[in-house]
Amino acid sequence: MSPRRVTVIGTGLVGTSVALALRRAGVRVALADRDPDAVAGAARMGAGGRLAADTPRADVVVIATPPSAVAGVLREAQRRGLGAAYTDVAGVKAPLLADAARAGCDLAAYVPGHPMAGRELSGPAGAAADLFRGRPWALCPHPRLAPGPLNAAVGLAALCGADPVLVASADHDRTAAAVSHVPHLLSSALAARFADADDASDPELLALAGRGLRDMTRIAAGAPALWHDILRRNAGEVSAVLDAVVRDLAEVAAALREDDPGGDRLLDLLARGAQGRARIVKVPSGRAVPPRTGPTR
Amino acid sequence: MSPRRVTVIGTGLVGTSVALALRRAGVRVALADRDPDAVAGAARMGAGGRLAADTPRADVVVIATPPSAVAGVLREAQRRGLGAAYTDVAGVKAPLLADAARAGCDLAAYVPGHPMAGRELSGPAGAAADLFRGRPWALCPHPRLAPGPLNAAVGLAALCGADPVLVASADHDRTAAAVSHVPHLLSSALAARFADADDASDPELLALAGRGLRDMTRIAAGAPALWHDILRRNAGEVSAVLDAVVRDLAEVAAALREDDPGGDRLLDLLARGAQGRARIVKVPSGRAVPPRTGPTR
Repeated sequence: MSPRRVTVIGTGLVGTSVALALRRAGVRVALADRDPDAVAGAARMGAGGRLAADTPRADVVVIATPPSAVAGVLREAQRRGLGAAYTDVAGVKAPLLADAARAGCDLAAYVPGHPMAGRELSGPAGAAADLFRGRPWALCPHPRLAPGPLNAAVGLAALCGADPVLVASADHDRTAAAVSHVPHLLSSALAARFADADDASDPELLALAGRGLRDMTRIAAGAPALWHDILRRNAGEVSAVLDAVVRDLAEVAAALREDDPGGDRLLDLLARGAQGRARIVKVPSGRAVPPRTGPTR
Repeated sequence: MSPRRVTVIGTGLVGTSVALALRRAGVRVALADRDPDAVAGAARMGAGGRLAADTPRADVVVIATPPSAVAGVLREAQRRGLGAAYTDVAGVKAPLLADAARAGCDLAAYVPGHPMAGRELSGPAGAAADLFRGRPWALCPHPRLAPGPLNAAVGLAALCGADPVLVASADHDRTAAAVSHVPHLLSSALAARFADADDASDPELLALAGRGLRDMTRIAAGAPALWHDILRRNAGEVSAVLDAVVRDLAEVAAALREDDPGGDRLLDLLARGAQGRARIVKVPSGRAVPPRTGPTR
């Protein structure tokens, strides 16, 4: 079921990385982007050739645009009959499936997808063929989906070196809020303390910072406009998790202002944090998980 | 000014790491801990010999206990005349200097210190001789401090491979709140979401987590009791930074619940986060900074 011919629409970081990984696996790749420079950049990196009027129909079309553009690009690609199966790489899934339904797309051929990998860079220059190696790649079966396209998307993820994980779109979005979207906001809120030229960003003092601050602010470097799009499309799930985090932190801030600062509230949060971390490291990323093939919702 | 003979009181992770680094540099090291097993463990690792009644006076005594124990241990060590200079490794400085003054310690010989390095492990077993290599090591001059002990502490930090950074204790504490203490709380609050056996910690879904979640929750594994002690001793600085983070996150949570979710508030936080991250990575940790030798406060 491995695809032999793939078209990638959107040659940013993720799209170009997909193309590079597929090229290395011997797949024929056609590239398209509304920005001709981005296509040219990706092509120079060896990611494939430009999509042309006479490019044969692809086994899979990968839509690697920002989330809000996916449904429109999918509809247009299906209208042009560019492929037998279609998938995307956006960080939120259920709302895009609804978008695609509303836009009149052929849902039987659309596999909502999300490789759980990325870098804090943008554009084809940051792309890497091994970006997905050993990383989970979520694919979201839904009632209207035909088996052929799902198999093709699984084959594509595997060709990229990723571990395909089948998961209902609602489960994906709830999990992504906790493991990706809220972490991004916490990273941003912490890094934002250093955005202004006040004491906190005094270079002399900032030199005291160790690996902790660097690790905690790494993902804050992600492109603001892209993350804005992702977060607002998953607003319900994100705000629910964020509320719980804000509640915990506000309670601790209040406890630190008491006469005997900190107290049980602070110790409790630290203890729960250590427990949660222990659970997180117990689960290997990707590999260990059997694909979920149960009913979608 | 390099110390040739050092006594380390408190053979946990940091104390034992200091001892191992000094041993590698040829320093004679004596070890003490209220837990005889901890001393035995450190000694077995080659960190030095047990402090005895006939151990010669040390050039520097390193107090590597939890913050709240430092002043008491310092007073007792000075009463016994264990060393010519004294320093500690606790993550908060101004309150400990005040503790030491209240306890009647000889402040002329006490150099408040803080190596900005650590691991998410406890006890001597997690110790490593290279823990401090290339990392900043804050030392806090104060009006009562004599030059000899300060030089000895600088020499000790350098022998451990660290970059000594002289900084007023109040500046240290304000900076530590932003670069270490609040990041720890954010990490804990995020990891706490995975502490309970509910959906967020479903192992099947947790397998979707990538490097972002792992990096963001790494420091949450730190010993809760130790961090409780550090954070409550720096309560004022920590709560001030934490308030700003909570305000930003609460505003974004509210913005995500609007009809057109996210909006300018969300985009603004993401943009400020990216700016702050850019400032953070511009400053090399440790090396680039000239020691601050100006007036302390």
